[in-house]
Amino acid sequence: MSSSSTCPVLIAGEWREAASIATFQATDPNRRQLLAPLFPVSTWEDCDAALDAATSAARELRTVPRGKIADFLDRYADRLEAAKDALVEAAFAETGLARSPRLGDVELPRTSNQLRAAAAECRSGNWAMATIDTKAGIRSCFESLGPVCVFGPNNFPFAFNSVAGGDFAAAIAAGNPVIAKANSSHPETTRLLAEQATEAVKETGLPPATVQLIYRTSHEDGARLVSDPRNGATGYTGSRAAGLALKAIADKAGKPIYLELSSVNPVVITPAALKERGNDLVDEFVTSVLMGTGQFCTNPGMVMLIEGEPANSFIDAVKDRFAAAEPGTLLSPAVSSSLSNSVKALCGFGAKLLTGGGEPVADRCAYANTLLRTDGDAFLRNPEGFQTEAFGNASLMVVCKNFDQLAAAISMLEGNLTGCVYSSSDGSDEDAYQQVAFELTPKVGRLLNDKMPTGVAVSPAMNHGGPYPATGHPGFTSVGVPASLVRFAKLTSYDNVRPHRLPELLQDKKSTEKTWRNIDGNWTHASL
Amino acid sequence: MSSSSTCPVLIAGEWREAASIATFQATDPNRRQLLAPLFPVSTWEDCDAALDAATSAARELRTVPRGKIADFLDRYADRLEAAKDALVEAAFAETGLARSPRLGDVELPRTSNQLRAAAAECRSGNWAMATIDTKAGIRSCFESLGPVCVFGPNNFPFAFNSVAGGDFAAAIAAGNPVIAKANSSHPETTRLLAEQATEAVKETGLPPATVQLIYRTSHEDGARLVSDPRNGATGYTGSRAAGLALKAIADKAGKPIYLELSSVNPVVITPAALKERGNDLVDEFVTSVLMGTGQFCTNPGMVMLIEGEPANSFIDAVKDRFAAAEPGTLLSPAVSSSLSNSVKALCGFGAKLLTGGGEPVADRCAYANTLLRTDGDAFLRNPEGFQTEAFGNASLMVVCKNFDQLAAAISMLEGNLTGCVYSSSDGSDEDAYQQVAFELTPKVGRLLNDKMPTGVAVSPAMNHGGPYPATGHPGFTSVGVPASLVRFAKLTSYDNVRPHRLPELLQDKKSTEKTWRNIDGNWTHASL
Repeated sequence: MSSSSTCPVLIAGEWREAASIATFQATDPNRRQLLAPLFPVSTWEDCDAALDAATSAARELRTVPRGKIADFLDRYADRLEAAKDALVEAAFAETGLARSPRLGDVELPRTSNQLRAAAAECRSGNWAMATIDTKAGIRSCFESLGPVCVFGPNNFPFAFNSVAGGDFAAAIAAGNPVIAKANSSHPETTRLLAEQATEAVKETGLPPATVQLIYRTSHEDGARLVSDPRNGATGYTGSRAAGLALKAIADKAGKPIYLELSSVNPVVITPAALKERGNDLVDEFVTSVLMGTGQFCTNPGMVMLIEGEPANSFIDAVKDRFAAAEPGTLLSPAVSSSLSNSVKALCGFGAKLLTGGGEPVADRCAYANTLLRTDGDAFLRNPEGFQTEAFGNASLMVVCKNFDQLAAAISMLEGNLTGCVYSSSDGSDEDAYQQVAFELTPKVGRLLNDKMPTGVAVSPAMNHGGPYPATGHPGFTSVGVPASLVRFAKLTSYDNVRPHRLPELLQDKKSTEKTWRNIDGNWTHASL
Repeated sequence: MSSSSTCPVLIAGEWREAASIATFQATDPNRRQLLAPLFPVSTWEDCDAALDAATSAARELRTVPRGKIADFLDRYADRLEAAKDALVEAAFAETGLARSPRLGDVELPRTSNQLRAAAAECRSGNWAMATIDTKAGIRSCFESLGPVCVFGPNNFPFAFNSVAGGDFAAAIAAGNPVIAKANSSHPETTRLLAEQATEAVKETGLPPATVQLIYRTSHEDGARLVSDPRNGATGYTGSRAAGLALKAIADKAGKPIYLELSSVNPVVITPAALKERGNDLVDEFVTSVLMGTGQFCTNPGMVMLIEGEPANSFIDAVKDRFAAAEPGTLLSPAVSSSLSNSVKALCGFGAKLLTGGGEPVADRCAYANTLLRTDGDAFLRNPEGFQTEAFGNASLMVVCKNFDQLAAAISMLEGNLTGCVYSSSDGSDEDAYQQVAFELTPKVGRLLNDKMPTGVAVSPAMNHGGPYPATGHPGFTSVGVPASLVRFAKLTSYDNVRPHRLPELLQDKKSTEKTWRNIDGNWTHASL
């Protein structure tokens, strides 16, 4: 079914006609109209060819000096910045996210900075955790794993893009080729990114199949891809249902899969904090929920309060602000219908609709800013139902009788990416904070104080992860260098291996002064 | 069905009558006779009670200073050494392993040393990888995860015991309570160990349910245990079939499970190495295979050679030594019948029996020392079949036409714990080494040169792990401190958290001088 007007896929370094069973088009969410370019739904033939090419590239990459891989990441970052205008235009057309500041001034710089951070880590080799036990004659480090499949989400067309985002950067920096599966809501943006990647691959002389791109496959072929013996590991960010389907098949095949699935990101605000700075908190919260139309993995989808006048005032003020604000554009028709369904489900469980709700807007992808309310008793009767994620510009207020009930409600939470506690700045409610934080900390990957969770800094100390079902494993983060690289690596010990045969990172004398290694229990820059 | 003569289980700090559906007895493999003590097969009631008690203990442990947890591990190590005679006697009766040097002089000291290494790591907090980004205001470290279920294997009654071994030490040192599931082949040894653990728990004032012990459950209840919402993670060492059954259910529940399943541990010996030191290599190999009657996870079950006179001489000499040596005692009737079945299967695939084979010895648990041979062509026709693990005193010689065929055979290997290459000491076959090592390294957790794989040093650089199906994840090791601790931990970021609320490890000023922390990209001992 593929034709000359269908965009080609990127396999083995060539843009070539897809072996496809169908085509699809992205939607301009601002007009709710299909965009012109046709993209292929690949058959297994394309996946198979990509896996073969990636296998060869993975072998070749094992012999490439890591500085060269780092050069590619840097060069790619430069190219993204040079191509900014076209990238922003394409992403705006496909996602409806603001050209500025969001796409051009926040997300694109974040993406290139992330590539550069990965480059620096690749160059230093610090991430590999080189460990030397001179007495036992054993040395170990993390090493590349093989081809990595990356499935990117709809909500970050650059920063989490399967061919440019965090998983991509981490997998490449760890020495692996990537097979990118584009998100179907922004294929043209992904194509433009991959064009820059291809040029950077050529300029730096990496194996051509280091970066490959397929736009879409059947669910069956996607499952086959992540479980194929040639695949090393998979990074996935997206819907919980699709992610769990991939996880089941990858787990069965013994293939590591890292997933970021869903999170309601509870925010606890104490009465004392509301009394002290209620207006500021309304501002912070409304800004956080409505920014990017709430389409962040770390969007504060649930606020937990203690009943009383401060909570009621906060909720009233938020309600008024939500009602007064023009609803932002959502990423796609699927996002607006999913948001509408989630709000209906929450109302079905007994949540009270304070503002918003109803059906999606007709002439563009949008949904009324929505605020819901329930109480601690109702939450505790149906904690699973009230944790239904409403991805977008909606949030649920859970008003508890007291801190004991709030703690009980938190103890029923699933794993989340983040959890926040706002408390009085004078420490007068420190006991309540401690009670809340004790319950909340084990449930979340990142605990915040007095700060909304929507910003995810690229920091060595960042954990963009969390207990299941926020992610598939509580020990890994998808954002942050070096920790995100280790996901796509294998630990290897060299036992009694002759000195000249050791990987360069494990040899007595290092070629660079900057690599941290653990030698006999001490971290050091020094050669042996 | 439980009666006063049935050994009690250890739940919530008390030795109490099991809720059991049946009893079982261990076998003395030297006489192939049941031993007297009756042990309970617990119902779900026991598992449920243990999970509840562990949940409370996990909460309490979060507030216990880590020095106190370390004290427990040290105290337990001391107690094991003091109880050496009784422990060795029980383990000898249940496993047939030699009292000396194996049980008393090698494995028990290894076990107490491992507990002490875990104690030191717990005390220092180094394993938690404290990371501080002063600019972003974010700090992270690994933290306890919750109750850990440990299923120990049959072949190390002390060092991998579910209530004393590597997984136990790692889980406790990371701050988690352990629910130990005894291996059914050495329940009395496990009971004696748990008695010492209980006393050490009391002496150091840890929560009583920090250590709990159940002897056996139905397969169904075992699966329910590892997937229960109250469980944090599972460590499992044992048979591939049972491990994969647990993995499937744990994966589905989103519960981390670390498995050590099976490994044939290929050893490549080049013709030049055989010419140079053939007699020594025969010695090394025979010692490695027959030691402990070959019942090591890292037993060299497959030797890969290049056809010709050196290989034939090596094989002939090994055959003679195997035939001349009295077969050692195997751990249980199940191990001897399993070994017999594996040898039959290998012969069925076309392997030639050079010595040994047949049926297990009748009056004790034993099986003839067995050497099998096949060639590279046959291996490449059925690589899966020829990788059938024959756990015990047996090994398969795979004789290849040349190094290209040998490399092709290696490329068909599943993941293994170890892989070894013996080559000429003068470097004359360096090209062959490089060809072999390039294929072998991605397949194994530990690459060795000129050394048999059976020793597994407790070293920070050790990887006792490897790609699936050797283990369930290529990035983790079950032996070696600190890496083994991280398996039973959750990564937590503290973002903008007020200084006094941070975990002690992440506060500006540390209470100990010895903790390595990464501050703004540099590893340091210093306070901020």
